[in-house]
Amino acid sequence: MGDAVPSRMRVEIAEQPEALRRTLDALLPQVGALEALGRETRQVLFIARGSSDNAAVYGQYLCSVRAGRLASLASPSLATVYRADLDLRGVLAVAVSQSGATGEIVTTLEWARRRGARTVAVTNVAGSPLTEAADVALVTQAGSELAVPATKTYTTQLAALAVLALSVGRGAGAGTPGPPDAGLAALEEVPDAVEAMLEVAPAAEALAGRLTYADTLVVSGRGFAYSTALELSLKLKETCYVTAVGLSYADLVHGPIAILDGGTPALLVAAAEGPMLSEMTGLARRIAATGVHVYGIGGDHDFAAACRSTLPGPSLPEHLAPFALVIPGQLLAEALARAKGLDPDVPRGLDKVTQTDP
Amino acid sequence: MGDAVPSRMRVEIAEQPEALRRTLDALLPQVGALEALGRETRQVLFIARGSSDNAAVYGQYLCSVRAGRLASLASPSLATVYRADLDLRGVLAVAVSQSGATGEIVTTLEWARRRGARTVAVTNVAGSPLTEAADVALVTQAGSELAVPATKTYTTQLAALAVLALSVGRGAGAGTPGPPDAGLAALEEVPDAVEAMLEVAPAAEALAGRLTYADTLVVSGRGFAYSTALELSLKLKETCYVTAVGLSYADLVHGPIAILDGGTPALLVAAAEGPMLSEMTGLARRIAATGVHVYGIGGDHDFAAACRSTLPGPSLPEHLAPFALVIPGQLLAEALARAKGLDPDVPRGLDKVTQTDP
Repeated sequence: MGDAVPSRMRVEIAEQPEALRRTLDALLPQVGALEALGRETRQVLFIARGSSDNAAVYGQYLCSVRAGRLASLASPSLATVYRADLDLRGVLAVAVSQSGATGEIVTTLEWARRRGARTVAVTNVAGSPLTEAADVALVTQAGSELAVPATKTYTTQLAALAVLALSVGRGAGAGTPGPPDAGLAALEEVPDAVEAMLEVAPAAEALAGRLTYADTLVVSGRGFAYSTALELSLKLKETCYVTAVGLSYADLVHGPIAILDGGTPALLVAAAEGPMLSEMTGLARRIAATGVHVYGIGGDHDFAAACRSTLPGPSLPEHLAPFALVIPGQLLAEALARAKGLDPDVPRGLDKVTQTDP
Repeated sequence: MGDAVPSRMRVEIAEQPEALRRTLDALLPQVGALEALGRETRQVLFIARGSSDNAAVYGQYLCSVRAGRLASLASPSLATVYRADLDLRGVLAVAVSQSGATGEIVTTLEWARRRGARTVAVTNVAGSPLTEAADVALVTQAGSELAVPATKTYTTQLAALAVLALSVGRGAGAGTPGPPDAGLAALEEVPDAVEAMLEVAPAAEALAGRLTYADTLVVSGRGFAYSTALELSLKLKETCYVTAVGLSYADLVHGPIAILDGGTPALLVAAAEGPMLSEMTGLARRIAATGVHVYGIGGDHDFAAACRSTLPGPSLPEHLAPFALVIPGQLLAEALARAKGLDPDVPRGLDKVTQTDP
């Protein structure tokens, strides 16, 4: 399956460590401004679609667990179509859009601002329309991304959201700046951990060769890794036309577990530590006992033993693991597309900048 | 495909008009108590899993559009596993659970109350543990539901959430009770509209016969009908083991549209009026133009013309249409299960009361 010319997607996957280093360097100086926004607000509302929405799910967990803020995802149509008249004072509205030019995301952030929210834009394009609607613009430094499936723009969004959440968390005290936070310093480990994941490529290629039979696939994770499961489900749908269903552990056991059978394997994603690891190992055993093929990304020795095959994950703490857990999955999606004779760079029916209402 | 003895699921589908009449009769006297909770809070946070979570999505749109309240869905693991220390003063936490006995839902409502939220329980079981954690208990009157797939407990949850949202909306003024609301009166139309939908059964049976080939299916809706798309996707997964992907219109066009092909039909759900109808008609045309089989529930003449086949929907206003739009889909899922030789009442791997953490 060796290709003389790698796909753009494959090249961009490999650019992520540098993209993350540039992004952290660019955004860490904005901690003070974010901390101030955190003091002026009491909760966070994310506005996003597609891969950016999956990044926002990570932001939601991080804001809740590490910053002590109620955090939720907005439905843009409430703003753009129904023009809901909500009181958003005390809300920090965070819009996430690679291009910064998706009309409904810009419109929704403007709507939030008019209704009293403080606003942040997370985008890869400086000066894009989204930044005009924001009190603070966090411009990721992914560089230009040519493949349609988002890879480096996704992980740099995670970096922006981590800087945001950990900064807001510092300002969580009663109006006074918090102490220097070990959470922000730990972000420095991330680019190297992502770089180490690139070595998984041959194993991902081999696993892709074993998964060409699967037209449907269930991807599941819990807690922080739930965002990774959603993103890998989207990547597999986009690049491989696999009907991948991304579900939380809980949503899987509340019904859809019925769809798993010999023709629908499961791909489970787990960090190497944290309270969700034993649950995901238990889920792997439970599903495998029914004869379903279970594959894994990450986890520990017991998790790997419960799966038919796993791609290794990082040793990062659970709340940072999503940066690196997504890499083996991106490599798998890219390799599986090629194994199926598809072009991972140009999925059918998709453009790079999606407008919901053309 | 006629059966001498109808399935429990089929019987319970037909019980929905009466279940809704009983539930509305039981809950409308609680409008005053809900209005008071609305005056004491500024936003709504739903806590639910499975079908109840799909009902909560309906509640989210209704609270936002009709009650002017920011409304969002909680991730129970933030409470039960991560024990996030959030400030929930000013939040109306609404837990939805048929049994009222799902441990993580009870734990999450208790967590919300300890953190300052006012609390509401929506459950079908009076005196269940969930009601103990609630300031106000809305007990639906579905009667006992024996089939594992939720039908009448789902639509009666919608009724409870409609009473809640429309009551909270009345109290939206600055501390003074609102005027009598036409919104609540309009709920009286709902049971008859649901009853009329039962006549769709033969058409649903016929459509089921045409869909036995589909192992995968995409179900989509937008706005209020998005909740219906999610619920029908879950029903099809549970009862027919179809890998059904429930997506909003927007999420579909942001990537997963790539999975649609001749083997993966689309089922689109639309109300007969409202701003989303023309968008759903456009989506039907766009997908059909690629050769994908598009089926519909509801909509109007143009929508039906854009689909290969449609099951009729109600003439209810858009914000009430989900009560009735779900019925043709329930009938379809039940008929498709039988057409595939499956027992709709007892899906593999599922119990009636799901505990996320066994």
